[in-house]
Amino acid sequence: MQTLRVALGERAYPIHIGAGILDDAALYRALLGKGRVAIVTDDTVAPLYLGRVRRALAGAGAEPLEIVVEAGEQAKRWETVDRICDAMLAAHCGRDALVIALGGGVVGDLAGFVAAIYQRGVAFLQVPTTLLSQVDTTVGGKTGIKHARGKNMLGAFHPPRAVIADVSVLGTLPDRELSAGLAEVIKHGFILDSAFTAWLEENIERLLARDADALTHAVRRSCEIKAAVVAGDEREQGQRALLNFGHTFGHAIEAGAGYGTWLHGEAVGAGMVMAAELSVRTGLLDPAARERVRALTARSRLPVQGPAVATDRFLELMAVDKKAVGGQIRFILLEAVGRAVLRGGLDEALVRGAIEACTAVRPAAATQ
Amino acid sequence: MQTLRVALGERAYPIHIGAGILDDAALYRALLGKGRVAIVTDDTVAPLYLGRVRRALAGAGAEPLEIVVEAGEQAKRWETVDRICDAMLAAHCGRDALVIALGGGVVGDLAGFVAAIYQRGVAFLQVPTTLLSQVDTTVGGKTGIKHARGKNMLGAFHPPRAVIADVSVLGTLPDRELSAGLAEVIKHGFILDSAFTAWLEENIERLLARDADALTHAVRRSCEIKAAVVAGDEREQGQRALLNFGHTFGHAIEAGAGYGTWLHGEAVGAGMVMAAELSVRTGLLDPAARERVRALTARSRLPVQGPAVATDRFLELMAVDKKAVGGQIRFILLEAVGRAVLRGGLDEALVRGAIEACTAVRPAAATQ
Repeated sequence: MQTLRVALGERAYPIHIGAGILDDAALYRALLGKGRVAIVTDDTVAPLYLGRVRRALAGAGAEPLEIVVEAGEQAKRWETVDRICDAMLAAHCGRDALVIALGGGVVGDLAGFVAAIYQRGVAFLQVPTTLLSQVDTTVGGKTGIKHARGKNMLGAFHPPRAVIADVSVLGTLPDRELSAGLAEVIKHGFILDSAFTAWLEENIERLLARDADALTHAVRRSCEIKAAVVAGDEREQGQRALLNFGHTFGHAIEAGAGYGTWLHGEAVGAGMVMAAELSVRTGLLDPAARERVRALTARSRLPVQGPAVATDRFLELMAVDKKAVGGQIRFILLEAVGRAVLRGGLDEALVRGAIEACTAVRPAAATQ
Repeated sequence: MQTLRVALGERAYPIHIGAGILDDAALYRALLGKGRVAIVTDDTVAPLYLGRVRRALAGAGAEPLEIVVEAGEQAKRWETVDRICDAMLAAHCGRDALVIALGGGVVGDLAGFVAAIYQRGVAFLQVPTTLLSQVDTTVGGKTGIKHARGKNMLGAFHPPRAVIADVSVLGTLPDRELSAGLAEVIKHGFILDSAFTAWLEENIERLLARDADALTHAVRRSCEIKAAVVAGDEREQGQRALLNFGHTFGHAIEAGAGYGTWLHGEAVGAGMVMAAELSVRTGLLDPAARERVRALTARSRLPVQGPAVATDRFLELMAVDKKAVGGQIRFILLEAVGRAVLRGGLDEALVRGAIEACTAVRPAAATQ
């Protein structure tokens, strides 16, 4: 097991990473106070891992309240928050309660939001069970639910007290979701760490084969990079924007293809290739570096081309993304592998060119 | 105008107190950024003061979004939060938005909670229009909504960027609400400041006559005392509990009489007299000091006796109050006027005696 300490705002918390640590009673014991423990999980994860967490907690002397929500994005809404809070109130959870999120990003966002607002905030432990949530949602303290008018429009910053990231649970993760998680891992290398990118180029097959040591290193290094970016920049200004590499194009891909068709990580994969292409067209990046981005994305079994969406529509979808400031789209571009920069005011023709170069089959309307 | 700076957590913010300052464009201008401004108010306050705030904002160069909710406690629920957020999203309020609460405690709690969770937190300005909200809700950063299982069960700590407390708006406040606000004012003197209590004994008639200078001083000193308590103790441990003087009895009075029958401040008034009585019976307080508590409460036109609730029921209601820890009720008692202490493990007979001594007409069941 490796432990990384993340400093965030007033608090620091540990991220424990390793194989089989889900069962380690000592990791839970460190967080238990006098209060009740509530586990929030979903009906996909519960049959796989809830029993093991329950046993580990029993070993630590706690008898948890268990709240199982439906799996999927649609659980991230107020009605679910209300239901969880209701169960906690009925079970007399007080201000000294501990909320445990056992699941992927949706469960983490949802349970984290509950922990943020339950009696004005209680302790929160994240036990992420997807690669994406292990490397992405455990650093930064973002929690939230959806609103009819947009994702993540309602939420709070509420960092966990600790994270238990067991890489052995990734053994049951579907292949597509493993690759979607890898998108964020390789993104961290592309934007800030060329040595990590080189390591990933060497070890991508071990990661795809779910080798525990390789996964432990990849999760650890990803969390370290994200933590370094977020530490000095908790409220999403400046450098934190670099974490959105691939996301401006990616959000347009997700929306254009219809939400749920592409996984977020898949859209980020193709989005990073587009951003690298745009970086070359802007004169910032060497074409050989773009090829490294494309190759590692492809070897991660992620798409490297966008869906068949007309370029005008694609541009429109990028403009409504919330990262647009004053109507002008800001892009995260690469100057080199391991060095990202934020740029606004790009010539639209360059953006069009990058989209069209990275789109498999474009409908006729887009070729005018 | 007087300005008090409140240090709370990472931030400090000003509380401006004075007559007519609602119209002072400069106070608003100091808070305006590039983002949109949303005023949340209720249908009692809107006809009285919304136009004035709108004009002041226009003078500061802002054209606010106006959201009017129904007056009363029932607005403090998720549906209202959702409606406010929906209006803000529709009006393209971004992370740089400013939410202004124009109204009493309900509007402050509600709009503050919206500000806490809208896009994970936006700036918040409080313009309290009741004495209770000027002296009580503007310091501490508590925001929240009700849950079917209890008041203030869902919420967040989200301090305002500034408070504009215009004492001249108290001219339109109903007499009962003025007195209910005075309950918290005199409480601050009883628990921590004998000189302020002496000033209140001298000036209570001026306050009841809504003299602007007297109100400005009373609001300022109340906020100062509360701020001093809260500053070192933001998350409600230890000394902050002293602010609950009169509230353990008070909550039982409110619940026993049926919520809405007594105003919160009225229940706190009678609750303080009961707590002073208990302090005497415990041997902590001189009877003459208890008489000062009773007399100033009565002169504030607050009840000094509880409702006709059987003592057993009264004790039961106190035990379910959330300040009970491990089943044992903790009381805030007085050692002297201006010096409160926290005590647990009191003999139940003493508590019964205090309740019965301060209850006007007890039903037969209670006299067994």
